[in-house]
Amino acid sequence: MQGLMMDRQLLISAIIDHAASYHSDTEVVSVNTKGGQHRTNYAEIRKRALKLASVFNKRGMAKSDRIATIAWNNFRHLELYYAISGNGQVCHTINPRLFADQMTYIINHAEDRMIFFDATFLPLVDGLRENLKTVDAFVLMEPRDDETAEKYPWLEFYEDLIESGDDDYHWPEDLDENDASSLCYTSGTTGNPKGVLYSNRSTLIHAMMSATPDVVNLSARDCLLPVVPMFHVNAWGTAYAAPMVGTKMVMPGPNLDGKSIATLFNQEKVTVSAGVPTIWAGLIDFLEQSGEKLPFLKRTVVGGSACPPSMIEKFRTDYDVEVLHAWGMTELSPLGTVNNLKNKHDALDNDEQENLRCNQGRPPFGIELGVFDDEDNPLAEDGQAQGNLYCRGYWVLNNYFHSEGDDLRNGNWFPTGDVATIDEDGFMTIRDRSKDIIKSGGEWISTVELENLALGHPAIADAAVIAAKHPKWDERPLLLLVEKPGSEFTESNMNEIYDGKVAKWWVPDTFRVVDEIPRNATGKVRKNLLRETFGDSLMDDPKLA
Amino acid sequence: MQGLMMDRQLLISAIIDHAASYHSDTEVVSVNTKGGQHRTNYAEIRKRALKLASVFNKRGMAKSDRIATIAWNNFRHLELYYAISGNGQVCHTINPRLFADQMTYIINHAEDRMIFFDATFLPLVDGLRENLKTVDAFVLMEPRDDETAEKYPWLEFYEDLIESGDDDYHWPEDLDENDASSLCYTSGTTGNPKGVLYSNRSTLIHAMMSATPDVVNLSARDCLLPVVPMFHVNAWGTAYAAPMVGTKMVMPGPNLDGKSIATLFNQEKVTVSAGVPTIWAGLIDFLEQSGEKLPFLKRTVVGGSACPPSMIEKFRTDYDVEVLHAWGMTELSPLGTVNNLKNKHDALDNDEQENLRCNQGRPPFGIELGVFDDEDNPLAEDGQAQGNLYCRGYWVLNNYFHSEGDDLRNGNWFPTGDVATIDEDGFMTIRDRSKDIIKSGGEWISTVELENLALGHPAIADAAVIAAKHPKWDERPLLLLVEKPGSEFTESNMNEIYDGKVAKWWVPDTFRVVDEIPRNATGKVRKNLLRETFGDSLMDDPKLA
Repeated sequence: MQGLMMDRQLLISAIIDHAASYHSDTEVVSVNTKGGQHRTNYAEIRKRALKLASVFNKRGMAKSDRIATIAWNNFRHLELYYAISGNGQVCHTINPRLFADQMTYIINHAEDRMIFFDATFLPLVDGLRENLKTVDAFVLMEPRDDETAEKYPWLEFYEDLIESGDDDYHWPEDLDENDASSLCYTSGTTGNPKGVLYSNRSTLIHAMMSATPDVVNLSARDCLLPVVPMFHVNAWGTAYAAPMVGTKMVMPGPNLDGKSIATLFNQEKVTVSAGVPTIWAGLIDFLEQSGEKLPFLKRTVVGGSACPPSMIEKFRTDYDVEVLHAWGMTELSPLGTVNNLKNKHDALDNDEQENLRCNQGRPPFGIELGVFDDEDNPLAEDGQAQGNLYCRGYWVLNNYFHSEGDDLRNGNWFPTGDVATIDEDGFMTIRDRSKDIIKSGGEWISTVELENLALGHPAIADAAVIAAKHPKWDERPLLLLVEKPGSEFTESNMNEIYDGKVAKWWVPDTFRVVDEIPRNATGKVRKNLLRETFGDSLMDDPKLA
Repeated sequence: MQGLMMDRQLLISAIIDHAASYHSDTEVVSVNTKGGQHRTNYAEIRKRALKLASVFNKRGMAKSDRIATIAWNNFRHLELYYAISGNGQVCHTINPRLFADQMTYIINHAEDRMIFFDATFLPLVDGLRENLKTVDAFVLMEPRDDETAEKYPWLEFYEDLIESGDDDYHWPEDLDENDASSLCYTSGTTGNPKGVLYSNRSTLIHAMMSATPDVVNLSARDCLLPVVPMFHVNAWGTAYAAPMVGTKMVMPGPNLDGKSIATLFNQEKVTVSAGVPTIWAGLIDFLEQSGEKLPFLKRTVVGGSACPPSMIEKFRTDYDVEVLHAWGMTELSPLGTVNNLKNKHDALDNDEQENLRCNQGRPPFGIELGVFDDEDNPLAEDGQAQGNLYCRGYWVLNNYFHSEGDDLRNGNWFPTGDVATIDEDGFMTIRDRSKDIIKSGGEWISTVELENLALGHPAIADAAVIAAKHPKWDERPLLLLVEKPGSEFTESNMNEIYDGKVAKWWVPDTFRVVDEIPRNATGKVRKNLLRETFGDSLMDDPKLA
C-alpha cells in the first residue's frame, strides 16, 4: 500500500521556482569578468533562465543533450545552471584549468552541443574549436560588442540569446527526477578524466542535506560567497543549496586573490564561505600583511585537500571564523563528511575540541562510509584500523559516464581511492591517497600527516611528502618544500617540525627545496610528477649507506 | 537519459541505521510513565526496534498492516516508530485525548491489528476493547508484572515481545520509498476524524528540510525536548529529524506541566524544544512564580494554534529564548511555514523585527502556498488580500485514507480551511479558520487577531472570539474570556485591549465571562460549541436596540 501524499518530482527547476517565489528580491552579487559588479536577484535569474531555456528548444536541443560551460562564478553561470538542467538538458561544467588536450577529450566525450564561456576563456575556446566534433554553438557570456563579433565571426553573445527568448515559457512537465541534470569530469592526477553524471534527484537530496546545520549550514539569514568554483562539482552544491533556502549569494568572478576576497567579504557582509586551503592561505597572507579583519564572516567550509591544523587554528583564534573541515569528491556530489562536533563534546576542553576538529569529520545522513582491507574485508571503525575508504549513498556515483565496466566494489560500494580511519563516532581521517601512501618496511606512513606538520613551519610556504624508493625499507618519506621568501630551511628545522609529533620512523630522512609544488586543475598535488623527479633520489643518498 | 548515481530508497529504516552507526551513544532520555527516568541511545534503540520488527513477522503482520500506538513521548514509542515503519507496517499513532467513540471509530477505520499503549491508557483500552473489530494484540509498554497480568489476562507486555525477538534480524529489502509508513487522524472540531497516510518518502523529505536552519534547525550539537506529542503528527516530524542529524532527545513522558518541563530543560541542558502555546503558557507561569531561568534553552518552535505576540516577546526578553512561530497541519506532515527573518531584515530596527516575527512565517523549500477567492481564482500575494489558503508540496496530503472523493481543489492544491494573507516575501498570516471568520456588514473580521490582543491583557487567563448573530450586521465579534484568579474584567478593560489597535468596527460589542474555553484533542478551540451556546446572545442584547 502506498502512502497518500502528493507525487512530486525532485527537480532542479523547483529550486529556482521556490527562490523566485519566496526570496524574489534576495540578491545575487557578481564580480564581472571584465571588471565592475552586477546586482540581480532570484526572481530575475529565474526569468532569464526561462527565456534562455526557450532558446535551447528553438536551437533543437533534445532532452539530455549536453550543454557546456567554461565560466567563473557569476550570475550568468547561475542562470545557465537552471536554464540547462531545468529544461531537461545536461549542464556540463568544464574546469578551465585542465590541459587543452584534456578539455578537447571531455568535450568530445560528453558530445557537448553548445558551449557557454566567459571572456577570459575566449582565446582558449578559439584554440580548441577546430578539434571539437559535436559543438554547434559557441556563446560568449557577455552582451554583444561589435569589435569582438567582427574578430570572431563564429561567436554568439549571451545577451542576444536572452533577448531572443520567450517571455512566457514554462519548464517542461515531463521530466523525471532520475533524469540526468549535470555532468562534471574528475580531474584525476593520471589518465583521462572520467565523467560523473548527476541526476535531478541526487542533486536535490544533496542540496537539502547540505543546508543542514552540521553540513554547510545555510539559511535566508546568511550571505554566501562560494570561492569554490561553479566549474568544479557545482561549487560543492552551494549553487543549489543557497537558492533552495534563500541565501544571498556573492560571486567572486575571476578574482580569487586574498585582497579581492577580503574586500568582497566585508563589502557584502558575507557570513559563510567555502573553498580549498590554497585560497585561504592567500587570504590569510593578505590579512596578516594588511591588518584587515573579517567582522562579518562566521564560518567557512574548507575541503578539496586536507586543511593544515595551523590554518584551522589561525582562523579561529585570529579572525573568529569557524573552519568546517570537509571531505568530498566529484563522485560524491561532492559532500562526504564535514567536521562538526557533537553534543557530548561540549564536555571536552578547548585543546581536545581543537584536536577533534582537525580530522575530515563525519558523514551526514545519506552517506555511509566503510574501511576495507585489500581483499575487501571490512575493518574496525575504531579510529585505529586504516584501510581503503569506500562510500555509498543517495548522491554517490554508481557508474562513470560511458563507463563499460563496474565502477563499484563489493557489489555496491564506491571505492574512493583514499586510505582512512573511521572512529566510533563516525569521524573520518584521510591518511592518504592509496597510491601516495608510503609503505616503509611493511608499515604505512601518511604523507598527509607529514605535510600538515610541515605546513605549520614558519620557513615553509608549500610542501609535499612523497614515497621515495629506498634500498632497505622499500620506501621512505621525502619532504619537498618551497621556502618562504627570505627563509632558509635546514636539517634542524626538520627536527622542529617532527620531534615528538610522530613516531621516529615516520620522520622524513631528508628534504629537497623546490621552486613550486605542482598541482592539477583542482589544486591537488601531482605526486606522480614529483615521484618521477625525486622518487629515486634517496637510492644514492650517502646518508643511507 | 538517467543520471548515474546510486539508486537508494528514502526509507525510515535508513534514519535509525544512520543514527546507530554515526551517533551510536547519543542519548535518548525518557521520563517513564510510572515515574523515574530511563537513559538509552540510538544504537540500543535500533537494536531493540529490529528485535521487535522480527516479532511482527512472527505474528503474521503483512506489509502495510496497521499497528497502533497510544503513548507518551518515551523511548519505547520511538522504538515502535522505527520497528513498525522500518519493517513495512504502518505506524498508526492515536491521540489519547480523542473521545472514546472517536478512538473506536479510527481504530476500526484503520483496521489496526495490534495496539501498543502506555500504562496511563490501560483503563481506556480496557474500555474500548470490546468494540474493536480488527485488533489481535494489546501490548502494554512496560515490563511484565504479575499483578497486572492476572487482572488483565488479554494483555501482553512490551518487554516480553522484545525478549522473544531475533538478535540477527535485518530490515526487509523489498520496501519502496512510496510505501505507506505511518497514519495519523486529524482531530477536526466537527465530523469524524480523517486519516492522513504518510509515505517513507514524504517523511524523509520532510525530515531533511525540518533539520535546516530556517525550519527546526537541528544538529548533533543540540538537545531536543519535544513537548509536542508523538501521538500527534509524529511530534511534528522531530522523531525522524532528530535521529537523522544525531540530536540528543529528551522525552517528557506524561508530565507536561511547567515545573516538570523546566526541570528537564535545565537538568538535561535542552537547547531546543517544540510545542503548542498552552504548554508554553504553563511554563511561563511556573517560571514567573518560581523565579527559575532557562540558561540552556536557545529556541522553541511554537505552533498548533496562533502564538500570542505577548508570549513571543516574553520568551525573548525575559528568558533569551528565540520563539519560532510556525504553522502546520496533520495533512502537511505537519510543517507548512516557520517564521525566520531574512538577510535583508538585519537592516530593520528591533520593533520592526519583533512585528515581523508575529506572523506564521514563510514556507521552506518543498512547500508552495497560494491564496484563492471562493471561486478558486488566485489572489495577490501582497500581504493585503485575504483568501482561502491552499498548499502543495512533497509532504502534503493527496487523499485521505479510504477517501472516495477528490480531496484537492483546482486540480492539485490542498485546501487548508484557513483564511490567510501572504506577503511579497512569502510571510503568511493566518487570519482565521474559514468557518470561524466573522462576516460583519460584508467585511471580514479575524477572530485570531482579536484573541491575540485579548490574551495580552493581565486580567485574562484564556479567551476566544466568535461570530455572534446580529440583526443589523449579520455577524459581530463576541469576546469570551476566562478571568485570571483575583481579577475582574470590565468594559473599560475592553477599551484597553482594542483602542487604537484595530479598526473601531472590529472591536467586539461586548464580552462574556466563562469558566473554561472548550478545546479539542489537539488544543484547538471548539468554536462550534461556543457558537451553539453564545451565537444568539447578541440578538436580544439591549445595547443593540
